[in-house]
Parts: sequence; C-alpha cells; structure tokens
Amino acid sequence: MDFDAAFIGSGAGGYYSALRLLKRKKKVLIIEKEKFGGECLNYGCIPSKALIELSEGIEYLKDMPGVSMNYSIDMKEWQKWKQSVVTRITGGAEKLCLSLGAKIVYGKGSIKDRNTVTVNGTDYSAENIIIDTGSVPVKINGIDDVYYNREILAMENIPEKLVIIGGGYIGIEMGTAFRKLGSDVYIVEMKDRILPEIEEDLAREVDKKLRKLGVKIMTGSRVQSVKKNGKYTVAIEGSESMEADTVLMSVGRVPNTADTGIEKLGIQMDGKFIHTDGHKRTSVPNIYAIGDVSGGPMLAHKAFYDGYVAAENILGNDTVVDYRALPFVVYTDPEIAFTGKSGAKYNKVPVLANPRSLTMNQKEGFFKIYYDDDGSITGAGVAAPRSSESITEISLAVESGLSIDDLFLTIHPHPTVSEGLKDAAERND
Amino acid sequence: MDFDAAFIGSGAGGYYSALRLLKRKKKVLIIEKEKFGGECLNYGCIPSKALIELSEGIEYLKDMPGVSMNYSIDMKEWQKWKQSVVTRITGGAEKLCLSLGAKIVYGKGSIKDRNTVTVNGTDYSAENIIIDTGSVPVKINGIDDVYYNREILAMENIPEKLVIIGGGYIGIEMGTAFRKLGSDVYIVEMKDRILPEIEEDLAREVDKKLRKLGVKIMTGSRVQSVKKNGKYTVAIEGSESMEADTVLMSVGRVPNTADTGIEKLGIQMDGKFIHTDGHKRTSVPNIYAIGDVSGGPMLAHKAFYDGYVAAENILGNDTVVDYRALPFVVYTDPEIAFTGKSGAKYNKVPVLANPRSLTMNQKEGFFKIYYDDDGSITGAGVAAPRSSESITEISLAVESGLSIDDLFLTIHPHPTVSEGLKDAAERND
Repeated sequence: MDFDAAFIGSGAGGYYSALRLLKRKKKVLIIEKEKFGGECLNYGCIPSKALIELSEGIEYLKDMPGVSMNYSIDMKEWQKWKQSVVTRITGGAEKLCLSLGAKIVYGKGSIKDRNTVTVNGTDYSAENIIIDTGSVPVKINGIDDVYYNREILAMENIPEKLVIIGGGYIGIEMGTAFRKLGSDVYIVEMKDRILPEIEEDLAREVDKKLRKLGVKIMTGSRVQSVKKNGKYTVAIEGSESMEADTVLMSVGRVPNTADTGIEKLGIQMDGKFIHTDGHKRTSVPNIYAIGDVSGGPMLAHKAFYDGYVAAENILGNDTVVDYRALPFVVYTDPEIAFTGKSGAKYNKVPVLANPRSLTMNQKEGFFKIYYDDDGSITGAGVAAPRSSESITEISLAVESGLSIDDLFLTIHPHPTVSEGLKDAAERND
Repeated sequence: MDFDAAFIGSGAGGYYSALRLLKRKKKVLIIEKEKFGGECLNYGCIPSKALIELSEGIEYLKDMPGVSMNYSIDMKEWQKWKQSVVTRITGGAEKLCLSLGAKIVYGKGSIKDRNTVTVNGTDYSAENIIIDTGSVPVKINGIDDVYYNREILAMENIPEKLVIIGGGYIGIEMGTAFRKLGSDVYIVEMKDRILPEIEEDLAREVDKKLRKLGVKIMTGSRVQSVKKNGKYTVAIEGSESMEADTVLMSVGRVPNTADTGIEKLGIQMDGKFIHTDGHKRTSVPNIYAIGDVSGGPMLAHKAFYDGYVAAENILGNDTVVDYRALPFVVYTDPEIAFTGKSGAKYNKVPVLANPRSLTMNQKEGFFKIYYDDDGSITGAGVAAPRSSESITEISLAVESGLSIDDLFLTIHPHPTVSEGLKDAAERND
C-alpha cells in the first residue's frame, strides 16, 4: 500500500486527523480540491469571527458614554488583513503536515475501490480512506446569483441594505455584524422564530438585542422569488417586495458527497449524510467519514473531534465518540453557548448581576446551569459576553460527572464573566 | 445577643459572607466606614476593568488595518457612566442585604470585647464578629500628594505624562491602560523586573508588549523623591529627574487594622496581618478575619471565598479553606492568568498558533499547562486574550484531580482562545 491513510478533503477534521497520524509516523495522503483547511478556516468560522470582532469593536465605542468617534473602514484593506490571518492559519497547518511527511495533492479525489483513491487521473492505494468532504450551502431553484457565506465574507464594501434569507446561526451572525457596521438589515425566516436550532430562551435574548439594534426580523415568512437587475428585488409571501443591494442566502447546509465515489461501494447513508458508527467507520470498515458529511451538528470542533476518533481507530486504539458535552456556540450579541443537556432542575442568573459584563457595557442575557436531583451538572445554556470561552468549564464538569457544588467551590477569578456560572451553581436552599 | 454575626467592613468578602448568612435566616449587622462594597467594587477591580476595557477598545481599532478613526474621550462623561456601573453593583448588593433583613450602619466600627462591636458610640452584641477591613496602599514618608488607585481611577482627564512608581499588577494594569489611551508612561520598579509577584515567563510577555506600546520601563530603579510644584518632579537614583503631570504610587498594599480594637483582645498577628486558621478564625474563636486583612494574596475572589468559609463555619458547617487552585489574574496585554502550581512537566503552546487570538489581531503570549508524571494537571500559566475567563477550566481540573487527557478530550468550541489550553493538553508521545 502506498499510504496508511488517504484523506479526501483537508478541512478542520481532515487535517487535524492527518496530523495525529503523521505525528505517529503514519504515511498520509491528503487530497484537497480547493484550499487547504476547508470551509471553516477559509470561508467560515475564522473570517466570520474576524468580521464579528470588528463590528463589536465599532459598536462598543459608538455606545460608550463620553466617547466621540468618527471612523471609516476600507474593506479592501481590511480583507487583505483578514486574508493574512487565514493564510497564516491554513499555511501553518499545511506546512506542518508537509514537514511531518504528508503528501498533499490538489485536485478532486474520489474512491475507486475500498483501498484506492483517484486524483488527477492517478491512483493511490491506502489501508484506510477518510472522507472529509464537508458541506455546501443549500441553494434554492430559481434563486441565483445571491451571496452565500463565501461571498458575504469576502465583501469589499459594507452593504447599504442587506436582506438575509434564513435566520439560522450563519444568517444571524452576519446580520448582527453588518448591522453594527452600518448596514440596514432584514432577516427573513420561515419558522416562527430565529435560531430555530437553539434553545428558545437563548434565541430570545438575541432576538431582543437584534431588534434593539434596529434589525428588521420577519419570522413565519417565506421568500417567493429573488430577482436581480442591478439591485435585488425580494418577493415575500403576503408582504411587500423589498429592494436590496445584497442578499445573503443562509437557509442551511447539506453534506457534500457529489462525485466521491461512495455509491460504487454501496456505502450506507443516513439520508444525505454518510452513515458512520461510533468509531466513525462507514459501512465499509476501513473507510471513515468525519465532520459535516458524517451527520450531527455541522461544527468545526465536532469535525476535529471526529478526526481524532478516526485517527485513534486507525492507530489501533479502539475509540468511540462521546458527544455528551458537544458545545454549540453562536457569536451573536449576546454570545450564545450551550453544552450537554437539560436536567431535572436549573438555576438561572441574569447578566445584569455579573459585574464583569457591566464593565463591558453589556447587560443582556443569562447564565443557566442544568443539573439533576443529586446535583450532577448535565449542561448549561449561556447568553453572555465571551460565553464561548467560559462554556468549557461546564463541558468539563459534564464529562467528569462533577456537581454544582464542585463548580461553586472552584474559585473563579474576579471580575470575570465566568463568575456568572459560579453564581448559577450556588444552592439556594 | 443582638446579632448572630457582626461584620466590620462591607468589602467583597464581607458582604458576600453576610449574604450567605442572611439567606439562611441569620441576624446580621454590617458596619461600613465609607462606601458599601469596599475597595474592589468602588475603587479597584471594577473601575479598573472598565478603564482597561475602554483602552483595549481604542487600541484594537487604532491597530486594525483598513480602519481609520478619530476619537475623543470626555473623561468626565465617561466617569459618570463608570460610576453608574459601580453604583449598580454596590447598590444592588446593599439592597439585597437590606431586603434579607441586614442592619447596615455607616461609621467606624471597632471591637469592644469578644461579643461586642461599637459604632458611632453604640454597642451591639454579636455571637460572631467578622473582620473584613481590607487593605490600604503603602505610602512612603516624604512622598505626599501623589495618586493612588482611588485617585487614578477617578481622573477626569488623560494624563499627558504619567510616572508610575511600582511595577506590580496595579501599576502595570494602569500603565497599560493609560498608554493605550494616549499617555506617555514611565514605570519605575525597584526589583529587576516588572510584575515580580508573577511567574517570570508570564511577566516577560507583558514587558515585551509594554515596550512595543512605547512604555518606558526602568527596573532596578529607586525613587529618591517626588516633589510637587504645579508639576511633579521625580528624582531617581542614578538617573536624571523626570517631570510629569501625574504620579501613581503603587508600591503595594498593607492590611488595614488601624483602630479595629484587635489589640485589646490580644488577637494573634502574622506580621501586619491578622492570623487565621483554616476556618478563617482568629485566635479568638468567635472572631473571624477574611480577605486582605487576613493574609495571602490580596484578591477579591480570595476574599469572597474566605467569606464563604467563615459563613459556613458560623452556620455550623465545619469548613476549611482550600487554596489549591486560587487563580491570579492580571488584566494586562496579553492578559495573564495563573492557577495551581507547577508540576513535573509542562506543555507550552504559543498564542500565534491559536486561530481565535489571531482573529482578534492578538499574537503575543502562550498557554502553559503543568502536570505530573501520571498526567494529573497541577496548574497553568496563561498569557493570552481573555485568559481570566478560560483559566477556570484548569482550576476545576486541579480541584477535581483531572488529567491532561480529560482536558484534551473535552470538546472545546472552535474558534476560541481556550482551544489553546486543549492544545497544550495534547500528549506529544
């Protein structure tokens, strides 16, 4: 065999898994059809966080009593900086893989048989094949030439009027950021609330803040057509049409299995996703699938984790996924984080009672810890500044079977946002 | 007895301890000679974090490629906002104590005998007395009329030239903030490095960044005199004198035991601190001392924790302090956090390898996890954005006897700064 493992796709899960194998002296082939690092690093979570950070910086100073500010943003210049950040990360990962001996081939890879992958007309044999082909945005027939995550994050100007079709986490993150950067933002969501994938009380905090920021939210609304003629015209059932200079389509993502060759091997599917067992093996045991293409929430850290599990099994270390404390984070205002699951009881503390948040001029949100009757922490839902950073103490507590008393008695530095979690862990009896 | 517990001082430890007793139906007296909430809330950690946050907001936009900004700060207006934040926190705490039945008396309290406190000429009897009189800045004979933490945090203009005597955490936090707000900053430190109370590798990151920001750091330097005549003239041994419009004296703090009456009862001391046992009892068992006055690091969260321990013992729940994972946080650039202790081994990962930090345009610092040969986490030192928020996962790990594998296998959301801790928990063998 030419390789111990061949990866189709170098996204978050793929390159991370490859690195784990490379560090343990395995021979690794990585096939990438576009850019090393995949969607998250190049076009998703990394550029979006840079943009959100910028919008929050602007909003903070605009809101701060005593501060007067005039500013302008040369988005072309900013995009260059953003691209330098992306390149540092993706380039670093690629170089590290190469330095550990990986062979990286650019081109469209597919599976020929259970031990052969093909790219650019060349076959390579491999003991194991890992499918990490990710996901693509859902496109709606007849609605063409709109913006998706890639285009919106590459914009070289700030839209005047931005209509967002789909109020899931991508649409809401982008809507919040561009509103803070000055755009007039409309969000059109088919369901009866935004962020339908998130617990309702968390989503409600974001909904409230978005309206306060002046974002127009239209729930229970269905887009009939989007026409482009210089400007866009968006027709919505039962409402007047809207004109806009930019339309973002963010109605979900679907697994990307096109032309991977999986149908030839009769690999079992779960709907559009590739079916995998707890080891991240497909129905063909030496072929693994990880990340978005393999089902479950489409999150980079879930892909990393899948990649770890697949690598361990390839290394002969029998390892099964444990998604018990898989966090979900949305970089909205307030920032939302959720981990674990609800329990028999919960305590809830408002952000207004958190001194550190007040020093940031942030007042919206809450800290909610779920626990069982014996005090074991089962999960948490947080809508508060920097909740993406503090949620991990709850994940760790869930993974380790810790109780609210364990959390309460852990000394949290003062003043921090994470003290809100400690306060929510206090027994009131 | 009039009260189950009488508190002398309503600082972080005092009011927190009082609240715990009040929630459990104890009769509580709180004596406060100045402002409810004490030094931290009124003049220390809360106002300083608000100022630091402002300075970081300015610096971030000034540094960001593509952003042009003009700004001015009306510090009088800003101070009003800051004061509103402080008042919300202190007023909230005071109201909560009152609503739970506390008697609050403003005046200078002292101990008359082991069951009596006196304030404004009135005696009150109490089963337990808790001393929470905090600390005061060290003043140097002959150097008068300079700024201390209270004055510098109340400034209604941004100093043109600020000389800071003492490079401990207060001096460095203020020096960083005012430099970012435009002051010309000089730091004079007697020892051979700044932040002598912090691990050297952490302090070095801050030293490097301060110099990059243009702060002049003079270590191994002793101030001879400070004269005020309109402007200040600061004379330094072996150097030329400096003129400055503002001089901050931050050479440490000492416990505040003046006029507390403790000498009458022959309460045992540890130098200038009140000696306490693990229950936070003084040598007179129904008299407790908590927070800065009782020794150990002068940190609000240590005071909260002391207050919790004292309250539990007063409630009859035998409880002993456990400072094993007492975190230390400095809100510098990069932000520093330390918890636990060093171990047999460590892993260190640079901030430059942390994608989330890069999206914030932050590149300095590292994540360092200490562990023993069996993998048990013993502590961590972090110099990275928002380290105050992520350090608690390490404190929780130390408290709970978790290993680097437990931490590594806990799914950290992507992209977050806390992923740096996960990466530092990865075994490289």
